[in-house]
Amino acid sequence: MSSPRTELVYGLHTVRALLQRHPDRVLRILLQQGRADERATGIEQVASAAGRVIERIDAARLRARLGDVVHQGVAAEVLRLEPWREDELLAAAGAARDPLVLALDGVQDPHNLGACLRTADACGALALLVPRDRAAPLNATARKVAAGAAETTPVAVVTNLARMLALLKDAGLWIVGADPDGPRPAAQVDMTGPRVLVLGAEGGGLRALTRRHCDWLARLPARGAVESLNVSVAAGMLLYEALRQRDAHVA
Amino acid sequence: MSSPRTELVYGLHTVRALLQRHPDRVLRILLQQGRADERATGIEQVASAAGRVIERIDAARLRARLGDVVHQGVAAEVLRLEPWREDELLAAAGAARDPLVLALDGVQDPHNLGACLRTADACGALALLVPRDRAAPLNATARKVAAGAAETTPVAVVTNLARMLALLKDAGLWIVGADPDGPRPAAQVDMTGPRVLVLGAEGGGLRALTRRHCDWLARLPARGAVESLNVSVAAGMLLYEALRQRDAHVA
Repeated sequence: MSSPRTELVYGLHTVRALLQRHPDRVLRILLQQGRADERATGIEQVASAAGRVIERIDAARLRARLGDVVHQGVAAEVLRLEPWREDELLAAAGAARDPLVLALDGVQDPHNLGACLRTADACGALALLVPRDRAAPLNATARKVAAGAAETTPVAVVTNLARMLALLKDAGLWIVGADPDGPRPAAQVDMTGPRVLVLGAEGGGLRALTRRHCDWLARLPARGAVESLNVSVAAGMLLYEALRQRDAHVA
Repeated sequence: MSSPRTELVYGLHTVRALLQRHPDRVLRILLQQGRADERATGIEQVASAAGRVIERIDAARLRARLGDVVHQGVAAEVLRLEPWREDELLAAAGAARDPLVLALDGVQDPHNLGACLRTADACGALALLVPRDRAAPLNATARKVAAGAAETTPVAVVTNLARMLALLKDAGLWIVGADPDGPRPAAQVDMTGPRVLVLGAEGGGLRALTRRHCDWLARLPARGAVESLNVSVAAGMLLYEALRQRDAHVA
Protein backbone atom coordinates (compact mmCIF):
# COMPACT_ATOMS: atom_id res chain seq x y z
CA MET A 1 0.00 0.00 0.00
CA SER A 2 1.00 3.57 -0.54
CA SER A 3 2.04 5.47 2.55
CA PRO A 4 0.06 8.64 3.26
CA ARG A 5 2.65 10.82 1.54
CA THR A 6 2.77 8.81 -1.67
CA GLU A 7 0.28 8.28 -4.49
CA LEU A 8 -0.06 5.66 -7.21
CA VAL A 9 -0.39 7.13 -10.69
CA TYR A 10 -0.88 5.12 -13.88
CA GLY A 11 -0.91 5.25 -17.65
CA LEU A 12 2.04 5.42 -20.05
CA HIS A 13 1.75 9.14 -20.73
CA THR A 14 1.37 10.13 -17.08
CA VAL A 15 4.20 7.92 -15.77
CA ARG A 16 6.46 9.10 -18.57
CA ALA A 17 5.65 12.75 -17.86
CA LEU A 18 6.40 12.31 -14.15
CA LEU A 19 9.72 10.60 -14.89
CA GLN A 20 10.70 13.42 -17.20
CA ARG A 21 9.50 16.34 -15.12
CA HIS A 22 9.89 15.15 -11.56
CA PRO A 23 12.24 12.12 -11.51
CA ASP A 24 13.17 12.83 -7.89
CA ARG A 25 9.58 12.25 -6.78
CA VAL A 26 9.21 8.86 -8.49
CA LEU A 27 9.83 6.13 -5.91
CA ARG A 28 8.83 2.98 -7.80
CA ILE A 29 7.81 2.08 -11.33
CA LEU A 30 5.59 -0.96 -11.88
CA LEU A 31 5.34 -2.46 -15.37
CA GLN A 32 3.00 -5.30 -16.20
CA GLN A 33 4.74 -8.59 -16.94
CA GLY A 34 4.71 -9.47 -20.62
CA ARG A 35 4.60 -5.90 -21.89
CA ALA A 36 7.46 -5.43 -24.33
CA ASP A 37 5.93 -3.13 -26.94
CA GLU A 38 7.40 0.12 -28.13
CA ARG A 39 5.69 2.35 -25.58
CA ALA A 40 6.70 0.10 -22.68
CA THR A 41 10.27 0.11 -23.96
CA GLY A 42 10.03 3.90 -24.08
CA ILE A 43 9.16 3.96 -20.37
CA GLU A 44 12.15 1.74 -19.64
CA GLN A 45 14.45 4.13 -21.46
CA VAL A 46 13.11 7.19 -19.68
CA ALA A 47 13.36 5.35 -16.35
CA SER A 48 16.91 4.30 -17.09
CA ALA A 49 17.86 7.87 -18.01
CA ALA A 50 16.45 8.97 -14.66
CA GLY A 51 18.41 6.25 -12.85
CA ARG A 52 15.30 4.32 -11.87
CA VAL A 53 14.78 0.56 -11.87
CA ILE A 54 11.50 -0.87 -13.16
CA GLU A 55 9.74 -3.61 -11.22
CA ARG A 56 7.66 -6.17 -13.07
CA ILE A 57 4.21 -6.98 -11.70
CA ASP A 58 1.61 -9.46 -12.92
CA ALA A 59 -1.64 -8.17 -14.41
CA ALA A 60 -3.88 -9.37 -11.55
CA ARG A 61 -1.79 -7.66 -8.86
CA LEU A 62 -1.63 -4.44 -10.86
CA ARG A 63 -5.40 -4.48 -11.25
CA ALA A 64 -5.84 -5.20 -7.54
CA ARG A 65 -3.77 -2.15 -6.66
CA LEU A 66 -5.30 0.25 -9.17
CA GLY A 67 -8.88 -0.92 -9.55
CA ASP A 68 -10.85 -0.65 -12.76
CA VAL A 69 -8.92 2.03 -14.63
CA VAL A 70 -7.19 2.28 -18.02
CA HIS A 71 -3.66 1.79 -16.68
CA GLN A 72 -2.03 0.54 -19.91
CA GLY A 73 0.15 -1.82 -17.88
CA VAL A 74 2.15 0.79 -16.01
CA ALA A 75 1.98 2.55 -12.66
CA ALA A 76 4.32 4.56 -10.48
CA GLU A 77 4.46 5.31 -6.79
CA VAL A 78 5.32 8.95 -6.40
CA LEU A 79 5.88 11.36 -3.55
CA ARG A 80 2.75 13.43 -3.31
CA LEU A 81 2.88 16.95 -4.70
CA GLU A 82 2.30 19.08 -1.60
CA PRO A 83 -0.06 22.07 -1.83
CA TRP A 84 1.57 25.41 -2.45
CA ARG A 85 1.39 28.23 0.04
CA GLU A 86 0.84 31.85 -0.92
CA ASP A 87 4.52 32.66 -1.21
CA GLU A 88 5.22 29.63 -3.39
CA LEU A 89 2.51 30.63 -5.85
CA LEU A 90 3.75 34.22 -5.91
CA ALA A 91 7.34 33.11 -6.52
CA ALA A 92 6.33 30.75 -9.32
CA ALA A 93 4.05 33.35 -10.93
CA GLY A 94 6.88 35.87 -10.79
CA ALA A 95 9.33 33.46 -12.44
CA ALA A 96 7.04 32.18 -15.21
CA ARG A 97 6.56 33.80 -18.61
CA ASP A 98 2.91 34.77 -19.08
CA PRO A 99 1.63 32.48 -16.30
CA LEU A 100 -1.92 31.21 -16.45
CA VAL A 101 -3.48 30.43 -13.05
CA LEU A 102 -6.92 28.86 -12.65
CA ALA A 103 -8.77 29.97 -9.48
CA LEU A 104 -11.94 28.40 -8.07
CA ASP A 105 -14.17 30.53 -5.85
CA GLY A 106 -16.05 28.18 -3.54
CA VAL A 107 -16.22 24.94 -5.57
CA GLN A 108 -17.41 22.42 -2.99
CA ASP A 109 -17.54 19.14 -4.90
CA PRO A 110 -14.34 17.03 -4.95
CA HIS A 111 -15.33 15.66 -8.40
CA ASN A 112 -15.37 19.17 -9.78
CA LEU A 113 -12.07 20.03 -8.09
CA GLY A 114 -10.42 16.95 -9.63
CA ALA A 115 -11.94 17.64 -13.05
CA CYS A 116 -10.69 21.24 -12.95
CA LEU A 117 -7.22 20.05 -11.97
CA ARG A 118 -7.13 17.61 -14.90
CA THR A 119 -8.23 20.38 -17.26
CA ALA A 120 -5.75 22.91 -15.83
CA ASP A 121 -2.97 20.36 -16.32
CA ALA A 122 -3.95 19.64 -19.94
CA CYS A 123 -3.92 23.37 -20.65
CA GLY A 124 -0.54 23.97 -19.06
CA ALA A 125 -1.79 26.14 -16.20
CA LEU A 126 0.85 27.05 -13.62
CA ALA A 127 -1.36 26.12 -10.66
CA LEU A 128 -4.91 25.78 -9.41
CA LEU A 129 -5.77 28.34 -6.73
CA VAL A 130 -8.43 27.59 -4.11
CA PRO A 131 -9.45 29.14 -0.80
CA ARG A 132 -8.98 27.00 2.31
CA ASP A 133 -12.56 27.43 3.48
CA ARG A 134 -15.69 26.77 1.44
CA ALA A 135 -13.72 24.62 -1.00
CA ALA A 136 -13.57 20.93 -1.82
CA PRO A 137 -10.66 19.07 -0.23
CA LEU A 138 -8.02 17.51 -2.48
CA ASN A 139 -9.05 14.06 -1.27
CA ALA A 140 -8.89 10.59 -2.83
CA THR A 141 -11.96 11.28 -4.99
CA ALA A 142 -10.52 14.52 -6.35
CA ARG A 143 -7.16 12.87 -7.02
CA LYS A 144 -8.80 9.97 -8.83
CA VAL A 145 -10.87 12.25 -11.08
CA ALA A 146 -7.73 14.32 -11.74
CA ALA A 147 -6.23 11.14 -13.28
CA GLY A 148 -2.67 11.95 -12.24
CA ALA A 149 -2.84 15.73 -12.65
CA ALA A 150 -2.78 16.18 -8.85
CA GLU A 151 0.85 15.00 -8.94
CA THR A 152 1.98 17.47 -11.62
CA THR A 153 -0.16 20.61 -11.34
CA PRO A 154 0.10 22.19 -7.90
CA VAL A 155 -2.90 23.30 -5.90
CA ALA A 156 -2.28 26.55 -4.05
CA VAL A 157 -4.44 26.67 -0.93
CA VAL A 158 -4.82 30.15 0.53
CA THR A 159 -6.64 31.56 3.53
CA ASN A 160 -8.06 34.56 1.74
CA LEU A 161 -8.78 34.33 -1.98
CA ALA A 162 -9.49 38.03 -2.47
CA ARG A 163 -6.20 38.96 -0.79
CA MET A 164 -4.31 36.45 -2.94
CA LEU A 165 -5.87 37.90 -6.08
CA ALA A 166 -4.72 41.36 -4.97
CA LEU A 167 -1.17 40.05 -4.44
CA LEU A 168 -1.17 38.41 -7.86
CA LYS A 169 -2.32 41.70 -9.39
CA ASP A 170 0.59 43.44 -7.70
CA ALA A 171 2.83 40.77 -9.28
CA GLY A 172 1.60 41.74 -12.74
CA LEU A 173 -1.20 39.26 -13.38
CA TRP A 174 -4.61 40.47 -14.56
CA ILE A 175 -7.76 38.83 -13.25
CA VAL A 176 -10.46 37.48 -15.59
CA GLY A 177 -13.69 36.24 -14.00
CA ALA A 178 -16.22 34.01 -15.77
CA ASP A 179 -19.67 35.57 -15.43
CA PRO A 180 -22.88 34.66 -17.26
CA ASP A 181 -23.87 38.33 -17.21
CA GLY A 182 -20.41 39.57 -18.18
CA PRO A 183 -20.32 42.45 -20.68
CA ARG A 184 -18.16 40.66 -23.26
CA PRO A 185 -17.81 37.15 -24.66
CA ALA A 186 -14.57 35.47 -23.57
CA ALA A 187 -13.15 35.84 -27.08
CA GLN A 188 -13.17 39.63 -26.62
CA VAL A 189 -11.23 39.58 -23.36
CA ASP A 190 -7.45 39.72 -23.80
CA MET A 191 -5.92 36.63 -22.20
CA THR A 192 -2.52 36.72 -23.91
CA GLY A 193 -0.49 38.02 -20.96
CA PRO A 194 -0.13 36.89 -17.33
CA ARG A 195 -3.63 36.01 -16.18
CA VAL A 196 -5.68 34.49 -13.38
CA LEU A 197 -8.93 32.92 -14.64
CA VAL A 198 -11.54 32.76 -11.87
CA LEU A 199 -14.61 30.51 -11.83
CA GLY A 200 -17.44 30.60 -9.33
CA ALA A 201 -19.21 27.86 -7.43
CA GLU A 202 -21.75 25.43 -8.81
CA GLY A 203 -25.07 27.21 -8.96
CA GLY A 204 -23.67 30.36 -7.41
CA GLY A 205 -21.12 32.18 -9.47
CA LEU A 206 -18.48 34.58 -8.24
CA ARG A 207 -18.81 36.07 -4.78
CA ALA A 208 -19.13 39.85 -4.68
CA LEU A 209 -15.68 40.31 -3.13
CA THR A 210 -14.06 38.09 -5.75
CA ARG A 211 -15.87 39.88 -8.54
CA ARG A 212 -14.56 43.24 -7.33
CA HIS A 213 -11.01 41.99 -7.90
CA CYS A 214 -11.68 41.06 -11.52
CA ASP A 215 -10.21 43.30 -14.20
CA TRP A 216 -12.58 41.80 -16.76
CA LEU A 217 -15.71 39.65 -16.65
CA ALA A 218 -15.98 37.17 -19.52
CA ARG A 219 -19.17 35.52 -20.75
CA LEU A 220 -19.31 31.86 -21.77
CA PRO A 221 -22.03 30.15 -23.88
CA ALA A 222 -25.45 29.96 -22.20
CA ARG A 223 -28.00 29.15 -24.88
CA GLY A 224 -29.70 26.20 -23.28
CA ALA A 225 -32.41 25.30 -20.86
CA VAL A 226 -29.87 24.40 -18.21
CA GLU A 227 -28.87 27.08 -15.73
CA SER A 228 -25.14 26.91 -16.19
CA LEU A 229 -22.17 24.96 -17.42
CA ASN A 230 -20.46 22.47 -15.18
CA VAL A 231 -17.50 24.29 -13.59
CA SER A 232 -14.85 22.03 -15.15
CA VAL A 233 -16.41 22.50 -18.61
CA ALA A 234 -16.48 26.28 -18.06
CA ALA A 235 -12.84 26.11 -16.93
CA GLY A 236 -12.00 24.15 -20.07
CA MET A 237 -13.65 26.74 -22.32
CA LEU A 238 -11.89 29.67 -20.64
CA LEU A 239 -8.49 27.95 -20.68
CA TYR A 240 -9.07 26.89 -24.29
CA GLU A 241 -9.80 30.50 -25.24
CA ALA A 242 -6.65 31.72 -23.46
CA LEU A 243 -4.49 29.19 -25.33
CA ARG A 244 -6.18 29.99 -28.64
CA GLN A 245 -5.41 33.68 -28.18
CA ARG A 246 -1.81 32.93 -27.23
CA ASP A 247 -1.28 30.71 -30.30
CA ALA A 248 -2.82 33.36 -32.56
CA HIS A 249 -0.68 36.05 -30.86
CA VAL A 250 2.54 34.14 -31.57
CA ALA A 251 1.59 33.16 -35.14
CA MET B 1 -43.47 9.50 -7.63
CA SER B 2 -42.90 10.09 -11.32
CA SER B 3 -44.26 7.45 -13.66
CA PRO B 4 -41.70 5.83 -15.95
CA ARG B 5 -42.49 8.21 -18.81
CA THR B 6 -42.12 11.39 -16.77
CA GLU B 7 -39.16 13.14 -15.18
CA LEU B 8 -38.81 15.70 -12.43
CA VAL B 9 -36.73 18.72 -13.41
CA TYR B 10 -35.88 21.65 -11.14
CA GLY B 11 -34.44 25.12 -10.97
CA LEU B 12 -36.00 28.42 -12.03
CA HIS B 13 -34.15 28.68 -15.33
CA THR B 14 -34.82 25.08 -16.38
CA VAL B 15 -38.52 25.05 -15.45
CA ARG B 16 -39.01 28.39 -17.15
CA ALA B 17 -37.24 27.18 -20.31
CA LEU B 18 -39.40 24.04 -20.43
CA LEU B 19 -42.60 26.07 -20.00
CA GLN B 20 -41.56 28.36 -22.82
CA ARG B 21 -40.23 25.77 -25.25
CA HIS B 22 -42.33 22.70 -24.54
CA PRO B 23 -45.44 23.74 -22.58
CA ASP B 24 -47.30 20.67 -23.85
CA ARG B 25 -44.84 18.37 -22.08
CA VAL B 26 -45.13 20.07 -18.67
CA LEU B 27 -47.60 18.10 -16.55
CA ARG B 28 -47.19 19.70 -13.11
CA ILE B 29 -45.36 22.67 -11.66
CA LEU B 30 -44.38 22.59 -8.00
CA LEU B 31 -43.44 25.84 -6.27
CA GLN B 32 -42.15 25.95 -2.71
CA GLN B 33 -44.56 27.51 -0.22
CA GLY B 34 -43.51 30.97 0.87
CA ARG B 35 -41.66 31.84 -2.29
CA ALA B 36 -43.02 35.14 -3.59
CA ASP B 37 -39.93 36.82 -4.98
CA GLU B 38 -39.58 38.23 -8.46
CA ARG B 39 -38.23 35.10 -10.11
CA ALA B 40 -40.98 32.93 -8.59
CA THR B 41 -43.56 35.43 -9.81
CA GLY B 42 -41.95 35.18 -13.24
CA ILE B 43 -42.52 31.43 -13.25
CA GLU B 44 -46.16 31.99 -12.30
CA GLN B 45 -46.61 34.36 -15.22
CA VAL B 46 -45.00 31.99 -17.73
CA ALA B 47 -47.09 29.11 -16.36
CA SER B 48 -50.24 31.17 -16.61
CA ALA B 49 -49.44 32.12 -20.21
CA ALA B 50 -49.04 28.43 -20.96
CA GLY B 51 -52.35 27.63 -19.28
CA ARG B 52 -50.74 25.75 -16.42
CA VAL B 53 -51.67 25.83 -12.74
CA ILE B 54 -48.92 25.92 -10.14
CA GLU B 55 -49.12 23.66 -7.09
CA ARG B 56 -47.60 24.80 -3.80
CA ILE B 57 -45.45 22.33 -1.91
CA ASP B 58 -43.67 22.69 1.43
CA ALA B 59 -39.88 22.78 1.52
CA ALA B 60 -39.46 19.41 3.25
CA ARG B 61 -41.61 17.56 0.70
CA LEU B 62 -39.84 19.24 -2.19
CA ARG B 63 -36.49 18.22 -0.77
CA ALA B 64 -37.74 14.67 -0.20
CA ARG B 65 -38.71 14.39 -3.85
CA LEU B 66 -35.62 15.99 -5.35
CA GLY B 67 -32.83 15.10 -2.95
CA ASP B 68 -29.87 17.35 -2.22
CA VAL B 69 -29.85 19.62 -5.28
CA VAL B 70 -30.02 23.37 -5.88
CA HIS B 71 -33.70 23.46 -6.82
CA GLN B 72 -34.36 27.14 -6.02
CA GLY B 73 -37.83 26.22 -4.77
CA VAL B 74 -39.27 25.05 -8.06
CA ALA B 75 -39.71 21.74 -9.88
CA ALA B 76 -41.77 20.42 -12.75
CA GLU B 77 -42.97 17.00 -13.76
CA VAL B 78 -42.53 16.69 -17.49
CA LEU B 79 -43.16 14.09 -20.14
CA ARG B 80 -39.82 12.58 -20.94
CA LEU B 81 -38.16 13.66 -24.17
CA GLU B 82 -38.01 10.40 -26.13
CA PRO B 83 -34.82 9.54 -28.05
CA TRP B 84 -34.75 10.48 -31.71
CA ARG B 85 -34.50 7.90 -34.46
CA GLU B 86 -32.32 8.32 -37.55
CA ASP B 87 -35.09 9.87 -39.62
CA GLU B 88 -35.99 12.37 -36.90
CA LEU B 89 -32.40 13.59 -36.65
CA LEU B 90 -32.13 13.85 -40.44
CA ALA B 91 -35.37 15.80 -40.69
CA ALA B 92 -34.35 18.20 -37.91
CA ALA B 93 -30.87 18.68 -39.38
CA GLY B 94 -32.41 19.40 -42.77
CA ALA B 95 -34.78 21.98 -41.32
CA ALA B 96 -32.28 23.82 -39.09
CA ARG B 97 -30.03 26.66 -40.15
CA ASP B 98 -26.37 25.70 -39.69
CA PRO B 99 -27.15 22.83 -37.31
CA LEU B 100 -24.51 21.76 -34.80
CA VAL B 101 -24.71 18.10 -33.75
CA LEU B 102 -22.48 16.57 -31.07
CA ALA B 103 -21.66 12.88 -31.65
CA LEU B 104 -20.05 10.51 -29.14
CA ASP B 105 -18.18 7.48 -30.44
CA GLY B 106 -18.26 4.83 -27.75
CA VAL B 107 -18.57 6.88 -24.55
CA GLN B 108 -19.43 4.23 -21.95
CA ASP B 109 -19.81 6.20 -18.74
CA PRO B 110 -23.30 7.58 -17.94
CA HIS B 111 -21.68 10.49 -16.05
CA ASN B 112 -19.86 11.52 -19.20
CA LEU B 113 -22.98 11.11 -21.32
CA GLY B 114 -24.95 13.35 -18.96
CA ALA B 115 -22.16 15.92 -18.79
CA CYS B 116 -21.94 16.03 -22.61
CA LEU B 117 -25.70 16.48 -22.84
CA ARG B 118 -25.61 19.40 -20.40
CA THR B 119 -22.79 21.00 -22.40
CA ALA B 120 -24.50 20.38 -25.75
CA ASP B 121 -27.63 22.04 -24.38
CA ALA B 122 -25.74 25.08 -23.09
CA CYS B 123 -24.11 25.50 -26.51
CA GLY B 124 -27.37 25.24 -28.42
CA ALA B 125 -26.57 21.95 -30.18
CA LEU B 126 -29.45 20.46 -32.17
CA ALA B 127 -28.98 16.98 -30.71
CA LEU B 128 -26.54 14.54 -29.18
CA LEU B 129 -25.84 11.54 -31.45
CA VAL B 130 -24.79 8.20 -29.94
CA PRO B 131 -24.57 4.63 -31.24
CA ARG B 132 -26.91 2.08 -29.64
CA ASP B 133 -24.13 -0.38 -28.82
CA ARG B 134 -20.95 0.42 -26.93
CA ALA B 135 -22.52 3.56 -25.49
CA ALA B 136 -23.67 4.66 -22.06
CA PRO B 137 -27.43 4.41 -21.51
CA LEU B 138 -29.43 7.58 -20.87
CA ASN B 139 -30.27 6.33 -17.39
CA ALA B 140 -31.09 8.08 -14.11
CA THR B 141 -27.41 8.91 -13.47
CA ALA B 142 -26.96 10.47 -16.91
CA ARG B 143 -30.20 12.44 -16.54
CA LYS B 144 -29.18 13.72 -13.12
CA VAL B 145 -25.76 14.89 -14.33
CA ALA B 146 -27.45 16.50 -17.36
CA ALA B 147 -29.32 18.71 -14.85
CA GLY B 148 -32.47 18.99 -16.98
CA ALA B 149 -30.79 19.04 -20.39
CA ALA B 150 -32.07 15.50 -21.09
CA GLU B 151 -35.57 16.99 -21.31
CA THR B 152 -34.66 19.71 -23.82
CA THR B 153 -31.79 18.46 -25.98
CA PRO B 154 -32.69 15.23 -27.81
CA VAL B 155 -30.44 12.20 -27.87
CA ALA B 156 -30.47 10.48 -31.25
CA VAL B 157 -29.71 6.77 -30.79
CA VAL B 158 -28.64 5.02 -33.99
CA THR B 159 -27.68 1.46 -34.85
CA ASN B 160 -24.70 2.38 -36.98
CA LEU B 161 -22.81 5.59 -36.21
CA ALA B 162 -20.67 5.52 -39.37
CA ARG B 163 -23.75 5.10 -41.56
CA MET B 164 -25.50 7.97 -39.77
CA LEU B 165 -22.49 10.21 -40.31
CA ALA B 166 -22.61 9.35 -44.03
CA LEU B 167 -26.32 10.24 -44.16
CA LEU B 168 -25.67 13.54 -42.39
CA LYS B 169 -22.91 14.30 -44.90
CA ASP B 170 -25.39 13.67 -47.71
CA ALA B 171 -27.70 16.13 -45.95
CA GLY B 172 -25.02 18.83 -46.15
CA LEU B 173 -23.30 18.59 -42.75
CA TRP B 174 -19.51 18.33 -42.55
CA ILE B 175 -17.90 16.08 -39.96
CA VAL B 176 -15.22 17.36 -37.55
CA GLY B 177 -13.50 14.80 -35.33
CA ALA B 178 -11.49 15.66 -32.21
CA ASP B 179 -8.10 13.97 -32.42
CA PRO B 180 -5.02 14.56 -30.25
CA ASP B 181 -2.83 13.89 -33.29
CA GLY B 182 -5.00 15.97 -35.65
CA PRO B 183 -3.11 18.09 -38.18
CA ARG B 184 -4.66 21.41 -37.14
CA PRO B 185 -5.73 23.09 -33.93
CA ALA B 186 -9.51 23.41 -33.62
CA ALA B 187 -9.29 27.15 -34.25
CA GLN B 188 -8.04 26.44 -37.77
CA VAL B 189 -10.93 24.13 -38.68
CA ASP B 190 -13.95 25.92 -40.16
CA MET B 191 -16.99 25.23 -37.97
CA THR B 192 -19.23 28.06 -39.18
CA GLY B 193 -21.58 25.97 -41.34
CA PRO B 194 -23.64 22.82 -40.68
CA ARG B 195 -21.39 20.54 -38.65
CA VAL B 196 -21.22 17.30 -36.68
CA LEU B 197 -18.56 17.38 -33.95
CA VAL B 198 -17.39 13.86 -33.04
CA LEU B 199 -15.61 12.87 -29.85
CA GLY B 200 -14.08 9.49 -29.06
CA ALA B 201 -14.27 7.29 -26.02
CA GLU B 202 -12.48 7.81 -22.73
CA GLY B 203 -8.92 6.62 -23.12
CA GLY B 204 -9.57 5.46 -26.68
CA GLY B 205 -10.29 8.16 -29.17
CA LEU B 206 -12.13 7.82 -32.45
CA ARG B 207 -12.55 4.37 -33.97
CA ALA B 208 -10.94 3.89 -37.39
CA LEU B 209 -14.29 3.67 -39.18
CA THR B 210 -15.53 6.87 -37.52
CA ARG B 211 -12.30 8.66 -38.32
CA ARG B 212 -12.64 7.79 -42.00
CA HIS B 213 -15.92 9.69 -42.11
CA CYS B 214 -14.38 12.88 -40.73
CA ASP B 215 -13.82 15.73 -43.16
CA TRP B 216 -11.41 17.35 -40.69
CA LEU B 217 -9.56 16.26 -37.56
CA ALA B 218 -9.17 19.00 -34.96
CA ARG B 219 -6.60 19.11 -32.17
CA LEU B 220 -7.44 20.27 -28.65
CA PRO B 221 -4.97 21.35 -25.94
CA ALA B 222 -2.73 18.56 -24.61
CA ARG B 223 0.12 20.18 -22.73
CA GLY B 224 -0.07 18.31 -19.50
CA ALA B 225 1.03 15.12 -17.83
CA VAL B 226 -2.44 13.64 -18.12
CA GLU B 227 -3.19 11.53 -21.18
CA SER B 228 -6.31 13.30 -22.34
CA LEU B 229 -9.09 15.68 -21.52
CA ASN B 230 -12.31 14.41 -20.01
CA VAL B 231 -14.75 13.89 -22.88
CA SER B 232 -17.27 16.47 -21.64
CA VAL B 233 -14.51 19.07 -21.27
CA ALA B 234 -13.26 18.26 -24.78
CA ALA B 235 -16.85 18.57 -26.06
CA GLY B 236 -17.13 21.93 -24.31
CA MET B 237 -13.95 23.22 -25.95
CA LEU B 238 -15.01 22.11 -29.44
CA LEU B 239 -18.53 23.51 -29.08
CA TYR B 240 -17.09 26.72 -27.63
CA GLU B 241 -14.79 27.06 -30.64
CA ALA B 242 -17.69 26.48 -33.07
CA LEU B 243 -19.78 29.20 -31.36
CA ARG B 244 -16.83 31.58 -31.26
CA GLN B 245 -16.30 31.19 -35.00
CA ARG B 246 -20.00 31.66 -35.69
CA ASP B 247 -20.14 34.85 -33.60
CA ALA B 248 -17.02 36.18 -35.35
CA HIS B 249 -18.50 35.24 -38.73
CA VAL B 250 -21.69 37.19 -38.08
CA ALA B 251 -19.92 40.22 -36.62
